[in-house]
Amino acid sequence: MKTPQSLAERLHIIVDGTDTPAGRLFDVVLLVAIVLSVAVVMLDSVLYLRLQYGQLFFMAEWFFTILFTIEYALRLFSAPNRKHYAFSFFGIVDLLAILPSYLSLFFVGAQYLLVVRILRILRIFRVFKLKSYMQQAGFLAAAFKTSQHKITVFFLSLLLLVTIFGSVLYVVEGPENGFTSIPLSIYWAVVTLTTVGYGDIAPKTPIGQAIASMVMITGYAIIAVPTGIFTAELTRTMRPQLHPIACPNCGKFGHAANAKFCDRCGHDLHV
Amino acid sequence: MKTPQSLAERLHIIVDGTDTPAGRLFDVVLLVAIVLSVAVVMLDSVLYLRLQYGQLFFMAEWFFTILFTIEYALRLFSAPNRKHYAFSFFGIVDLLAILPSYLSLFFVGAQYLLVVRILRILRIFRVFKLKSYMQQAGFLAAAFKTSQHKITVFFLSLLLLVTIFGSVLYVVEGPENGFTSIPLSIYWAVVTLTTVGYGDIAPKTPIGQAIASMVMITGYAIIAVPTGIFTAELTRTMRPQLHPIACPNCGKFGHAANAKFCDRCGHDLHV
Amino acid sequence: MKTPQSLAERLHIIVDGTDTPAGRLFDVVLLVAIVLSVAVVMLDSVLYLRLQYGQLFFMAEWFFTILFTIEYALRLFSAPNRKHYAFSFFGIVDLLAILPSYLSLFFVGAQYLLVVRILRILRIFRVFKLKSYMQQAGFLAAAFKTSQHKITVFFLSLLLLVTIFGSVLYVVEGPENGFTSIPLSIYWAVVTLTTVGYGDIAPKTPIGQAIASMVMITGYAIIAVPTGIFTAELTRTMRPQLHPIACPNCGKFGHAANAKFCDRCGHDLHV
Amino acid sequence: MKTPQSLAERLHIIVDGTDTPAGRLFDVVLLVAIVLSVAVVMLDSVLYLRLQYGQLFFMAEWFFTILFTIEYALRLFSAPNRKHYAFSFFGIVDLLAILPSYLSLFFVGAQYLLVVRILRILRIFRVFKLKSYMQQAGFLAAAFKTSQHKITVFFLSLLLLVTIFGSVLYVVEGPENGFTSIPLSIYWAVVTLTTVGYGDIAPKTPIGQAIASMVMITGYAIIAVPTGIFTAELTRTMRPQLHPIACPNCGKFGHAANAKFCDRCGHDLHV
Repeated sequence: MKTPQSLAERLHIIVDGTDTPAGRLFDVVLLVAIVLSVAVVMLDSVLYLRLQYGQLFFMAEWFFTILFTIEYALRLFSAPNRKHYAFSFFGIVDLLAILPSYLSLFFVGAQYLLVVRILRILRIFRVFKLKSYMQQAGFLAAAFKTSQHKITVFFLSLLLLVTIFGSVLYVVEGPENGFTSIPLSIYWAVVTLTTVGYGDIAPKTPIGQAIASMVMITGYAIIAVPTGIFTAELTRTMRPQLHPIACPNCGKFGHAANAKFCDRCGHDLHV
Repeated sequence: MKTPQSLAERLHIIVDGTDTPAGRLFDVVLLVAIVLSVAVVMLDSVLYLRLQYGQLFFMAEWFFTILFTIEYALRLFSAPNRKHYAFSFFGIVDLLAILPSYLSLFFVGAQYLLVVRILRILRIFRVFKLKSYMQQAGFLAAAFKTSQHKITVFFLSLLLLVTIFGSVLYVVEGPENGFTSIPLSIYWAVVTLTTVGYGDIAPKTPIGQAIASMVMITGYAIIAVPTGIFTAELTRTMRPQLHPIACPNCGKFGHAANAKFCDRCGHDLHV
Repeated sequence: MKTPQSLAERLHIIVDGTDTPAGRLFDVVLLVAIVLSVAVVMLDSVLYLRLQYGQLFFMAEWFFTILFTIEYALRLFSAPNRKHYAFSFFGIVDLLAILPSYLSLFFVGAQYLLVVRILRILRIFRVFKLKSYMQQAGFLAAAFKTSQHKITVFFLSLLLLVTIFGSVLYVVEGPENGFTSIPLSIYWAVVTLTTVGYGDIAPKTPIGQAIASMVMITGYAIIAVPTGIFTAELTRTMRPQLHPIACPNCGKFGHAANAKFCDRCGHDLHV
Repeated sequence: MKTPQSLAERLHIIVDGTDTPAGRLFDVVLLVAIVLSVAVVMLDSVLYLRLQYGQLFFMAEWFFTILFTIEYALRLFSAPNRKHYAFSFFGIVDLLAILPSYLSLFFVGAQYLLVVRILRILRIFRVFKLKSYMQQAGFLAAAFKTSQHKITVFFLSLLLLVTIFGSVLYVVEGPENGFTSIPLSIYWAVVTLTTVGYGDIAPKTPIGQAIASMVMITGYAIIAVPTGIFTAELTRTMRPQLHPIACPNCGKFGHAANAKFCDRCGHDLHV
């Protein structure tokens, strides 16, 4: 590896890398800052805490905003391709982490805007650049990707089930039992089929309860479908790839896919 | 493929096929119309929206009814076997999509009837004629089919569990704690065993709560049964079929089931 | 098969067998009678139905009681070993199906006793003597049996989790928030960990809610344990048993475990 | 095995072993004492039971405290390495089982302290020293360990989902519908995503209910992820290790990993 020449290159290694002590320290400081800044946003939304520590939260907020602004500037400056960074996923998240605070200076009623700052939590993934995590996440993503058609079929069926069950309950129970409209009844069907069961809307007539029981058992049973799809796909993805031939000399099977020689007798595996 | 001769044959390719640009356009328009018409039925059931936009919904409803009527006529006209289409699953769904609106002209109290229009959502599957979706749905259906005896045994056991647990709670808690009858207590058992848990009926005596805890843990644990059955079946269904013999020349194993020659040395696989 | 000699033997074939038309008819009639008699018990527990149809239910009840008494007498008479039948599982269930009605003639306050009649539903399994169902149930039972030590470990851990989490919430929330005692708090922990979530008892302090969130996520995640155990076991149980050797002549692998000759070249598989 | 020399050695075999009748009896007595003492702690927390049997509970409590104190002294005395025992997991649990009672003599307001006694239930694992249980628990632990990176990725994603969904609902529903702060809204998101669904906080606006439906379906579907990870890992862990080569003489495959000779023809498997 050649020695970095410019300041931008040296900064890039610290800001984006994890191989140097400085790079690792930068990551740890960043992780702590992200967690603390998100905690401040959360606690600031609790009324009695804001009344008591509002001033402190305000100062902490600006401290983190300035910190993240410096970090954003450093990243932008040190990026090999600045435009590419600015419009990348993390580039936008990094910008969203600081923008709301500045905008709140110019606009009133910024409460809704300030919630955007909670997206800073997405930046936590910046720190998990470790290879092994990415590989495992890759396994999960691959299993999702290969089974996406099956999952689409499943979700379409789910959509259909809640629409039909919801409409049936709307007719059976009616507005007098809390099922005031079809969309609300579909909401009830989702609450029931996913086995969440708030209980804010619940069937009261015997027929409604009988149909609701069917919805529940359906929801209880078909959870097997996404689980089955994902498990079967993951089992397949994780199955170790084996070398396709047995050793022509001693017959041992089960070498790693990239083996060149038999690990028992040393015979060449490429006949 | 020979050139279509009659008007009916040409229409059939557009209405039922997905291979021509016209056929694909027809599908997209149909999909949008189905989704919009279902949305109108749903929104029309919301009281304050009906009060405000009732006239608009009424007009939209008739627009879609006429559209679907034309479509139904086209399908009936272009079907290779008209009788067969009229009594097929989608033939009936297509008819149910338009009938309620016409019937509501002659009968009063059509609210319940109009809900039937929500079944139009079933027509959404018309559009998913794509081969890859059908194949994946086929995998799921096959896994269900092979495991149907296991699933029947599971559902019978479930029925038994809720009946017995419900009756026990009826005796233990009694009408004074909301368990007013055995059917209602069975409804409670279903709500609890499927982990939905509305909370509209809940045990209040210590013994009732202890038994309810058993019901919950049972429900929590036996979800493993349908999931296990379906996953094991799906894993088996999805396992790739391999050619039964290794190459007699180079020993490579793992060719596709229908392979004729070794893909490594070209030796004949049919000894 | 030799011709049955005595009346008892001939009855046994009808009452317990499914191979003759008479035996199958007997099963169907029995199935209907069981379902109807259980329905009567259930409906009789609904107050306004009893007020209206009480007389009818009473008569139906005695009709079924006498029917099942005759059936019990026939089974006892035709059993190859009468004592063995009387003390078998189904012998006791058959007796419990009729005893409560007779006992209610002599004892007052028979409401609790009459609920025992609901156990008649267990007799429904009598009818499912079909081979394929039993085999599938056998698969499930085998998977449960082999994994019973794993399941015991899981349930002990579950017991521990709810005890500790329940006690912690009792201290954190206290009687003023509905957690009036440790057993009740454990009940809450079961309701929460199994994701039932009635909502009759729910944490109200921030710390309580934070700990409750941990309980929920724990419950949500460890459902994977029984499911994983059962699925892995079932996958293993259902894996087809293959003949251990490849054909010594043509090399084909994958014959059924009990195959005697190669199904491709006819060579003897027992070298 | 050599004959134990000292009293400590002889005690150690009784107290920690399960191979002698005395050792097994000690375990059974200990199991009963643990269960009873935990039951006393639980029942003592029920107000009306304490009012009635408080004196009895007090005496039982001191009986068990003295019993466990003697046991602790015996264990400490007979331990091969006393310091090692005192600071081991079970050493600390054993101490925690008796300390609160003694401390309650000197400090007032010991209610919170006394709850620590419930940790005695952890000592129940002392008795499960049986080999087969440990092996099965080992399988489960191994499956957890290998999949820990996947599980970390999953939990981080879960944390992110509830934070973002909770914040969105806080903005959409607002304090007037019960979503009074972001932490409380995140608590709601956990309750909903894990399908617990207390119903103490529930969305009331149509948009809130639509987003909540998405949260529920997400929670319902992604339960597949931990289940899939664990099942796939467990299936892999439990797959029997086979001897890598077929018998060079008769071709039989599928011997145990540590087999030395073919179990059919006796030929040496180590070519």
